[in-house]
Amino acid sequence: MSSTTGTPPPSTHPHSQEGPTHWVLSLSCPDQPGIVAAVAGLLATHGGNITESQQFGDPLTGLFFMRVQVEAATSRDELQTALTTLAHEFDMTWRLDVAGRRVRTVAMVSTAAHCLHDLLFRQRSEGLPVDIVAVVSNHTALADVAAFYGIPFHHVPVTRDTKPQAEARLLELVQELDVELVVLARYMQILSDDLCRTLAGQVINIHHSFLPSFKGARPYAQAHDRGVKLIGATAHYVTGDLDEGPIIEQDVERVDHTRSVEDLVALGQDVERRALARAVRWHAEHRVLLDGHRTIVFR
Amino acid sequence: MSSTTGTPPPSTHPHSQEGPTHWVLSLSCPDQPGIVAAVAGLLATHGGNITESQQFGDPLTGLFFMRVQVEAATSRDELQTALTTLAHEFDMTWRLDVAGRRVRTVAMVSTAAHCLHDLLFRQRSEGLPVDIVAVVSNHTALADVAAFYGIPFHHVPVTRDTKPQAEARLLELVQELDVELVVLARYMQILSDDLCRTLAGQVINIHHSFLPSFKGARPYAQAHDRGVKLIGATAHYVTGDLDEGPIIEQDVERVDHTRSVEDLVALGQDVERRALARAVRWHAEHRVLLDGHRTIVFR
Amino acid sequence: MSSTTGTPPPSTHPHSQEGPTHWVLSLSCPDQPGIVAAVAGLLATHGGNITESQQFGDPLTGLFFMRVQVEAATSRDELQTALTTLAHEFDMTWRLDVAGRRVRTVAMVSTAAHCLHDLLFRQRSEGLPVDIVAVVSNHTALADVAAFYGIPFHHVPVTRDTKPQAEARLLELVQELDVELVVLARYMQILSDDLCRTLAGQVINIHHSFLPSFKGARPYAQAHDRGVKLIGATAHYVTGDLDEGPIIEQDVERVDHTRSVEDLVALGQDVERRALARAVRWHAEHRVLLDGHRTIVFR
Amino acid sequence: MSSTTGTPPPSTHPHSQEGPTHWVLSLSCPDQPGIVAAVAGLLATHGGNITESQQFGDPLTGLFFMRVQVEAATSRDELQTALTTLAHEFDMTWRLDVAGRRVRTVAMVSTAAHCLHDLLFRQRSEGLPVDIVAVVSNHTALADVAAFYGIPFHHVPVTRDTKPQAEARLLELVQELDVELVVLARYMQILSDDLCRTLAGQVINIHHSFLPSFKGARPYAQAHDRGVKLIGATAHYVTGDLDEGPIIEQDVERVDHTRSVEDLVALGQDVERRALARAVRWHAEHRVLLDGHRTIVFR
Repeated sequence: MSSTTGTPPPSTHPHSQEGPTHWVLSLSCPDQPGIVAAVAGLLATHGGNITESQQFGDPLTGLFFMRVQVEAATSRDELQTALTTLAHEFDMTWRLDVAGRRVRTVAMVSTAAHCLHDLLFRQRSEGLPVDIVAVVSNHTALADVAAFYGIPFHHVPVTRDTKPQAEARLLELVQELDVELVVLARYMQILSDDLCRTLAGQVINIHHSFLPSFKGARPYAQAHDRGVKLIGATAHYVTGDLDEGPIIEQDVERVDHTRSVEDLVALGQDVERRALARAVRWHAEHRVLLDGHRTIVFR
Repeated sequence: MSSTTGTPPPSTHPHSQEGPTHWVLSLSCPDQPGIVAAVAGLLATHGGNITESQQFGDPLTGLFFMRVQVEAATSRDELQTALTTLAHEFDMTWRLDVAGRRVRTVAMVSTAAHCLHDLLFRQRSEGLPVDIVAVVSNHTALADVAAFYGIPFHHVPVTRDTKPQAEARLLELVQELDVELVVLARYMQILSDDLCRTLAGQVINIHHSFLPSFKGARPYAQAHDRGVKLIGATAHYVTGDLDEGPIIEQDVERVDHTRSVEDLVALGQDVERRALARAVRWHAEHRVLLDGHRTIVFR
Repeated sequence: MSSTTGTPPPSTHPHSQEGPTHWVLSLSCPDQPGIVAAVAGLLATHGGNITESQQFGDPLTGLFFMRVQVEAATSRDELQTALTTLAHEFDMTWRLDVAGRRVRTVAMVSTAAHCLHDLLFRQRSEGLPVDIVAVVSNHTALADVAAFYGIPFHHVPVTRDTKPQAEARLLELVQELDVELVVLARYMQILSDDLCRTLAGQVINIHHSFLPSFKGARPYAQAHDRGVKLIGATAHYVTGDLDEGPIIEQDVERVDHTRSVEDLVALGQDVERRALARAVRWHAEHRVLLDGHRTIVFR
Repeated sequence: MSSTTGTPPPSTHPHSQEGPTHWVLSLSCPDQPGIVAAVAGLLATHGGNITESQQFGDPLTGLFFMRVQVEAATSRDELQTALTTLAHEFDMTWRLDVAGRRVRTVAMVSTAAHCLHDLLFRQRSEGLPVDIVAVVSNHTALADVAAFYGIPFHHVPVTRDTKPQAEARLLELVQELDVELVVLARYMQILSDDLCRTLAGQVINIHHSFLPSFKGARPYAQAHDRGVKLIGATAHYVTGDLDEGPIIEQDVERVDHTRSVEDLVALGQDVERRALARAVRWHAEHRVLLDGHRTIVFR
């Protein structure tokens, strides 16, 4: 078992490594004096050496957020027991994981290859800490990309009538493969409200505009028509409220009047893959915490 | 007379310099073969040496745009006569000016000083080619800034009832002072439709968001609430359709979850003044041409 | 007394405010387990509520760095006594200050106005937490800028022969005015090794290139000749080793082949003032700690 | 034949397409009045419609540069004949090509995959106008990447003793495959002076620093040691003078004190592939002209 959350109860991952020494702990709770001292004291008691630590208290929501990386020779059981007690005292939601553990991930795509290519390449060559265990697509165009990286490819077509079955198949895969994260890497289907709720906080989408500008379809065509001088992309958690999910990362690229809609699409691919790769990395490193409909990103 | 437009007929500026040798010509017309050859030929005939030249044909509107800087010992009269004939042949709208001439400008402000400071400083020290001949404000807070730079300050209060009189006073100033450009440098009043029409293409506003995100009031508060990771600013021509005028320049700055609304306002000031200063410079150098509700910017 | 350092012994500032409640504590010491717990525990014991906290352990130097903002009703004396004991145990260098206190600053300039203008404007209008108590210059060109903001202006000419006297006068001012920070805001004289040592860690310079590119004189001319596509600026602490002091902040701006050396100089002014203003803000907020010849910046 | 240069005499490419209608003409010559008019007049005479045109006169070198895209139904022979005459009159160096033609390219690599991946992906999916006809490497690590894209892979090992033979083999490939461009996509060998001269203006390298900072080996380690706050990459033409070739493009990425040398290497990969891809695109679109040891880039 490698990742442990306070509430809801810890899930068990059969693919964990035993005997880790570098932990990452993330937590949130109502703000009050003494939280940092309590957490740091607990870790010191267990021989922990804090290597990275960030906190933030949101005056608007009254919530406190913290992420700590700590080296400790202690067992997971010991840490968990101590944290469970502390969490009860401070009304904490928490998660304990091995630092650097690869998060089990499904990539969902349609026909655009750039985001998928980029994630797979970064996983293999740049230490992106995900383990993409499956590529799921409503098309077959990108089967060869998955094959090149040796990742199983699942063709799950979606029509208006078969959407419920398609989503059921996705959920099945998520459970069978013990998936922790679903990345919509330019997947051109809208997930149902039910699925969004079931996978809340576990689905990251890349929207090809600088939200909240240009919601909805064909954002580059909208951007071109409005004559903007920068185009952008937004990586966000998916919620039932389309294009309104908590934003994790945004980036932009300069354009000018000579650019056609097709040019914007091509230029946008770079921005999209950059923003998505950062969001996936930060999520997989447990750097992103939810604060209402906003995110805390401990970069 | 220093600036000459094809249609409508040339206006006369009493503050012009005689005997210039470096000209800037900007023009637009329906696209067809031979325009560049005709313009370059005309200029060569008059002994002109082209130092900078840019063209763009918009396939969507079928319009052609061109900006040429040319050194020529010829008189303005000769050039104008030749251009008038050519313009008739190609159905051109055109403008001839002395390169680098300072455009007579009014800055309108309320209480925020950063954009006014920045424009005045750049005019004095960085060669921004405007001559700010008056600062107009509905408040008195910035009178000392104007005084420091030796610019006449006009306090024109605006209430719901006195708005027509206030706008009449502004128009009067524009005429008296032979003003070519009005810059709304964080002027917190909405101009009437009539005034927008009268001064069409001559009023630049800085909007404190990345349009079309966060139109309307308190954009930084909106941006904070949405949890964006970049804040922006947009310099645009003012039209009767609020926040929908043609965009000249946009810029952004990275922010994170630790930033309060007040922080965004402070950080945004840098983005606002950068974007506004660029837009004003490009306009004053006749680099901005209108292409429907979009702009061509020959940077 | 508002700012307290562990080693060397605390200096006394007559301009301090009594009864502060928001403190900022920065410290460094050899890395070992338990530091965060000890510091957080100490603060909790004194009723402190941590609002912001950052740590970094440098594996290369074996040093640990921490910055904490904490709200506490305790007196400075109590905090200092406790910190002195803790510092002894962990071999800490530390500094305690009131968060947001304006750092007493001298700006040194020659003839270029942009950085001075920017700092003065940001101090007045953007909450830059410095109190510029004097402008010192080897020229008189910027006396009117200082006057506009009501800051005393000291003309201290420098020739090869009078340099020692000029530097003695500067040191006198630093002592008389209880100055904590000297900003070389495009001051075109090189400080002597002695002065650099005396004011070590208290002098910030803006170098008009992306160091270590283009050290020495006329960096924009060098950059132009090399045909670079981005120009930069570097804000750094001044040491006896010219252009080699610890870097605090760098920024860049895109340029192209059309830009002359003069254009680069003008464009560079924007980059210079941005980079300098950030460095000054971070220093004044005690966010910058020295780690050998590198800086830790807790942004 | 698809690409034609004025001096030296036109080379013949057997892989050309007949009957093109969209041409790109690039040229340089000593500056004098009338060049634009002469070129535009020639093109108009042949029924050409100019769709894009850029000029630049360099006051330092006295040279004039121009790039024109023109739609014309005329044959290449006719255009060439006319241009040869004009070129003689103005002492022009010129090149005529079909706009959008894919430039025949060899990619040279060692073991780092990111730049190769990126170029191959952009060629296939983003319209990068190159035809990568071979991957040459002194290692075998990237053979599978080439295979995935169906590109022949040539393993040409290099030792101190076999370097001449290895370079001879490269030249052989360049000739056999009618190669126009060689891209050093993180190829970790230095080309000999002879090879640099033979392929002058046809070899683009990506250097993993912001030149002229950090020339030579291990630039990220140098950058880390200096404590820079931005890391960069530089795409440049290769000359015998190592790291001094004309710069085509540069880009940077922000870093902070928490980044290890390994982190800089990983972050740098993004900057490197962005800068290289842009340089290759601009070269392949004939947007890059040499002006001494600097480049004109008509973007």
